[in-house]
Amino acid sequence: MTAFTRTGARAADQLRPVRITRHYTMHAEGSVLIEFGNTKVLCTASVEERVPPHKRGSGEGWVTAEYGMLPRATHSRSDREAARGKQNGRTQEIQRLIGRSLRAVFDLKLLGERTIQLDCDVIQADGGTRTAAITGAWVAAQDAVTKLLAAGKITQSPLIQPVAAISVGIVEGTPLLDLEYVEDVGCDTDMNVVMTGAGHYVEVQGTAEGVAFTRKEMDALLALAEKGIAELIALQQQALRD
Amino acid sequence: MTAFTRTGARAADQLRPVRITRHYTMHAEGSVLIEFGNTKVLCTASVEERVPPHKRGSGEGWVTAEYGMLPRATHSRSDREAARGKQNGRTQEIQRLIGRSLRAVFDLKLLGERTIQLDCDVIQADGGTRTAAITGAWVAAQDAVTKLLAAGKITQSPLIQPVAAISVGIVEGTPLLDLEYVEDVGCDTDMNVVMTGAGHYVEVQGTAEGVAFTRKEMDALLALAEKGIAELIALQQQALRD
Amino acid sequence: MTAFTRTGARAADQLRPVRITRHYTMHAEGSVLIEFGNTKVLCTASVEERVPPHKRGSGEGWVTAEYGMLPRATHSRSDREAARGKQNGRTQEIQRLIGRSLRAVFDLKLLGERTIQLDCDVIQADGGTRTAAITGAWVAAQDAVTKLLAAGKITQSPLIQPVAAISVGIVEGTPLLDLEYVEDVGCDTDMNVVMTGAGHYVEVQGTAEGVAFTRKEMDALLALAEKGIAELIALQQQALRD
Amino acid sequence: MTAFTRTGARAADQLRPVRITRHYTMHAEGSVLIEFGNTKVLCTASVEERVPPHKRGSGEGWVTAEYGMLPRATHSRSDREAARGKQNGRTQEIQRLIGRSLRAVFDLKLLGERTIQLDCDVIQADGGTRTAAITGAWVAAQDAVTKLLAAGKITQSPLIQPVAAISVGIVEGTPLLDLEYVEDVGCDTDMNVVMTGAGHYVEVQGTAEGVAFTRKEMDALLALAEKGIAELIALQQQALRD
Amino acid sequence: MTAFTRTGARAADQLRPVRITRHYTMHAEGSVLIEFGNTKVLCTASVEERVPPHKRGSGEGWVTAEYGMLPRATHSRSDREAARGKQNGRTQEIQRLIGRSLRAVFDLKLLGERTIQLDCDVIQADGGTRTAAITGAWVAAQDAVTKLLAAGKITQSPLIQPVAAISVGIVEGTPLLDLEYVEDVGCDTDMNVVMTGAGHYVEVQGTAEGVAFTRKEMDALLALAEKGIAELIALQQQALRD
Amino acid sequence: MTAFTRTGARAADQLRPVRITRHYTMHAEGSVLIEFGNTKVLCTASVEERVPPHKRGSGEGWVTAEYGMLPRATHSRSDREAARGKQNGRTQEIQRLIGRSLRAVFDLKLLGERTIQLDCDVIQADGGTRTAAITGAWVAAQDAVTKLLAAGKITQSPLIQPVAAISVGIVEGTPLLDLEYVEDVGCDTDMNVVMTGAGHYVEVQGTAEGVAFTRKEMDALLALAEKGIAELIALQQQALRD
Repeated sequence: MTAFTRTGARAADQLRPVRITRHYTMHAEGSVLIEFGNTKVLCTASVEERVPPHKRGSGEGWVTAEYGMLPRATHSRSDREAARGKQNGRTQEIQRLIGRSLRAVFDLKLLGERTIQLDCDVIQADGGTRTAAITGAWVAAQDAVTKLLAAGKITQSPLIQPVAAISVGIVEGTPLLDLEYVEDVGCDTDMNVVMTGAGHYVEVQGTAEGVAFTRKEMDALLALAEKGIAELIALQQQALRD
Repeated sequence: MTAFTRTGARAADQLRPVRITRHYTMHAEGSVLIEFGNTKVLCTASVEERVPPHKRGSGEGWVTAEYGMLPRATHSRSDREAARGKQNGRTQEIQRLIGRSLRAVFDLKLLGERTIQLDCDVIQADGGTRTAAITGAWVAAQDAVTKLLAAGKITQSPLIQPVAAISVGIVEGTPLLDLEYVEDVGCDTDMNVVMTGAGHYVEVQGTAEGVAFTRKEMDALLALAEKGIAELIALQQQALRD
Repeated sequence: MTAFTRTGARAADQLRPVRITRHYTMHAEGSVLIEFGNTKVLCTASVEERVPPHKRGSGEGWVTAEYGMLPRATHSRSDREAARGKQNGRTQEIQRLIGRSLRAVFDLKLLGERTIQLDCDVIQADGGTRTAAITGAWVAAQDAVTKLLAAGKITQSPLIQPVAAISVGIVEGTPLLDLEYVEDVGCDTDMNVVMTGAGHYVEVQGTAEGVAFTRKEMDALLALAEKGIAELIALQQQALRD
Repeated sequence: MTAFTRTGARAADQLRPVRITRHYTMHAEGSVLIEFGNTKVLCTASVEERVPPHKRGSGEGWVTAEYGMLPRATHSRSDREAARGKQNGRTQEIQRLIGRSLRAVFDLKLLGERTIQLDCDVIQADGGTRTAAITGAWVAAQDAVTKLLAAGKITQSPLIQPVAAISVGIVEGTPLLDLEYVEDVGCDTDMNVVMTGAGHYVEVQGTAEGVAFTRKEMDALLALAEKGIAELIALQQQALRD
Repeated sequence: MTAFTRTGARAADQLRPVRITRHYTMHAEGSVLIEFGNTKVLCTASVEERVPPHKRGSGEGWVTAEYGMLPRATHSRSDREAARGKQNGRTQEIQRLIGRSLRAVFDLKLLGERTIQLDCDVIQADGGTRTAAITGAWVAAQDAVTKLLAAGKITQSPLIQPVAAISVGIVEGTPLLDLEYVEDVGCDTDMNVVMTGAGHYVEVQGTAEGVAFTRKEMDALLALAEKGIAELIALQQQALRD
Repeated sequence: MTAFTRTGARAADQLRPVRITRHYTMHAEGSVLIEFGNTKVLCTASVEERVPPHKRGSGEGWVTAEYGMLPRATHSRSDREAARGKQNGRTQEIQRLIGRSLRAVFDLKLLGERTIQLDCDVIQADGGTRTAAITGAWVAAQDAVTKLLAAGKITQSPLIQPVAAISVGIVEGTPLLDLEYVEDVGCDTDMNVVMTGAGHYVEVQGTAEGVAFTRKEMDALLALAEKGIAELIALQQQALRD
């Protein structure tokens, strides 16, 4: 128990309200607006009938991701990366993470020689943009796969199982699930966890922002993450049923 | 009269349904989602308490704009400019146009030494993104100015009058107002017009995509644009009253 | 009538002395130095027996343009774009305009799968560099086409008709033809007009630098431009006869 | 027990031979060649009497890192990043990781307004370059700090405690410590762990390269990492005594 | 004596016709078109009342150079460096050479804290562009210095003595002065020599394009260069008297 | 005779201790650490079974070089070129020089359609890095060629003869061989000479850093260089025998 009060009297192990809106834009094969509280990320899945050079002739497909943030998605405006002429290190890290996470649940052979390009663009940021992006990108990818199946381009789904992600962290000594921005800024430890529907880890990235963290703290964070991801996977399934 | 039928049986001199949603995101001083039919552009206005070098010490402020398009805002995915490492010529042209159009209705002295940075990001494209951007950016700028006035940072509005923009064009011989994408692709002449609330021109940019156009055709296009912009300015005013 | 006096007692509707020197350099298939008063632009046309990717296999050719300014073509030295590592927005706008203007008078099918690359480099700037560039580039393109015909590579000219361009503007309330630099700096409205030999518009780009302009002012400017372009087209024809 | 045989009959929980050579080059305030088996990384620490903009006037210093790989440090030559004109995403991820890891054991206030710039350049790569880099960079940083103390520029060491890093992974079902290249290529899970001398975590980055990993596997990997890092920290201390 | 015949029956030790046209463009403080036969280089000298960072507060000025080639200055069109986004190695080498050569005859203290920026742009290339650039840049610099003296900004000329440059080479076994393009392409050895009015060397850059060259060949080339540069320096003086 | 005393009482015509260590790293086909006193350069030769576009289908191979300096190879840290996003002019000049020097002793026909890529990376700099690079790169190239012969990929060595390089200069009036950094900084004339085993010149690059140099001084420098290079070529041969 702690004196720390979260926005909206949220419990330490409680997700922010999650909203998954499919078909958010009309051109992409999959298009999902995912909201973790005030964090809003537009995730689109585009199917392209070609693969990058390292996959040509392999009979396998490719899944990759790009990540961006609108300049005023944040409290104070950040430079537009296109204008500055390069993506910064954080952006590159995040888009590599999203790509790896989604590839972990794809059978690239079943996809055939085509690419699913995921674009995750943050419309509004309030902490947890990368985990929202992974969780939403999976739904967009599922919609794109469904279209490929419906069009007869593939006969078996290459999407093996769900994947979702959540952030956890220790703020003023308390392990918290799904950090919003003010919590993220003040936290000592920040961990992003990506898990499959089977409850196995795809990625665990824990970082001590302030003091280093103990094994016991890490165990507490992993337990929180496991709970949150199970809930997110249920929400993904529900969104797909709607 | 023409055999050409527009989507939704729209008349040649009719705007698409226009929707202006203020306060679309929460961080920016002004944040407007503007929709011209299926075209959706998020326009944010950010106030920064500094000016670029050429205005330092001048006692005047600055108004500038950047424009971007989410990679899958379009029918087929286009490269992310941040990943490619530069903004293309079209992007630069458009953001220069937006900046000039807004500066035309600003009194930079009354703004004081601060910058209003307008970001126009296309969420979904179906023709007319630059004209929607200008029209929406003006509303976002107005909201930002209202905040500056409320905060006592300025005592008189530097926004002299409204500005709005629309595209017109000749498709299969017929002059049309507010081209959507399929019309834009097939048109012979494409013209973007930016006008003030007083009915004066800020910009006229007419381009013959196919055959060159006559003075008579130009006059017809200008008349259509004048009608459309008057309607847009009324819609801006209504949005600000809501 | 106005108190404003132009350099050399030039009339409001008078072009500066125009000089078109063909074969200015020896390597290019077309090479023209065009002078509008003190503005001097070297326009070369290079024929390349290949087309860009979007035209490969189409049976059609391509016409494109690049524009540059020597660093000390201007009053004070401007940065060399090659050293800075990118072309600025103005440069890109201008080279896109030149390319569109020339393509408007080319039949790309008759050109065959080859490219005419126009390079317009400003040796000395005194206003109107983009309009001089278009006017001169057409002559250079004509010389390159003549060589292709003479070499038997094509049997019919793909150059359908002439194209030329001029700037007009309102300075201290007076509409003026062919602005030189000091007039351009002080003008309220600046308009660049590109017309074909048939007197039709290819491009009209009017910009209010200061106060927005009325329809009546626009009509006056268009009339001036029409007069100037007719004279330029006569001068192009004369240069080709020499 | 496993059928998998490691190079040189190395045990699953055994580090490769580690060699730490101080004063490897003569100009840097700290210069360490660290070898993990065939992996060789040159780590230099440079002291600069200035800080980046976000620290100016704060009274605090800064610690940052850059990472590079000589083009032929690897089996087949990779492009030189300086020639290609940018650092790739992997390079940026690694140098951000090194920087965070070192900052975690620095008291930036005690450092004063100066920067310790760590450069980690891979001379020869055989797996584990980022963990060798962190482990070696700490020794180089310690040497630089010792010089600052000796010069009287600081009176108390800003280096609070040691930090070291190791990779662990699951290869053919067996958890292994300190993966060499052939193991890294074939592994299902790859984890990099950074710990302090006190045995607390600074970073845990686990990635499923093939199938997702279970909590039990993660526990096994963390145990291996803890053992390895304790040994590395002892080796750092010994190197500093020599 | 040799069987090799030069264009226009030029002797082995004969310069091409050299033409130096001062005041070629109107804005620059010095503006010279220099022609070595068909090679034409525009050299401008711009005076800027500031110095680069490494000279600030030193009481000394700076002299620097940039070099460029119009895309169609050459037989076949070369890419525009501004469009490609960087200057190639050859361009950088040449502009560094021009800068060093001019600085060798400047007393930077007498120049005061200002910069003379030399821009050498090749309008037409036929071999020897860098040597023409150095020779012409010196005249442009002299004109700029004369203006500074006339304006009373400096009281004593910082230009100590003349400098000029010429290429020499061995073609089919014969040492030749001032190579034109076809000779340059076929030569075994290519040497660029920069000398002062006093007959001393500022730069000697000899390169074996084919077989390595002997000391005897080098002596022959140096003798030719000495003769040619003496003539060029006389031509510079004559141009300044005109 | 002079009052100037060199480090370690070195004679004016004496090389620094030269050390050539072959097989310095394990992956490259040739890998040589060459030391000229405190200057240490790692030279690797990589064989790639492809050629650049201008050699494709020619039956000839290619030899090229890249050069880099670790950020803290120097007294004060220099920016990492990969981070800055481009190689500076000096780097490009040097890598072009190394490439030309090595190609001068290669028969590209005998090499066949493959590339030898030389990477010269300065680990520690104390003057003469480019000359050490050329001298060491030749040994690395020789080792790579020996592997190609042993593998039966070529049957005759394409390496015609040795090549080596040395710097010479005039310091306080005295011609010196093999300048170290403090001598290089203070010298009036700096010359880099590249010669073949046959004693012929491949490159001579002399630069007056301060006052211009006379023919007599040049002759003295060339004599010193000839002596030094003969010694270096003997050391290369000895290293290959070891």
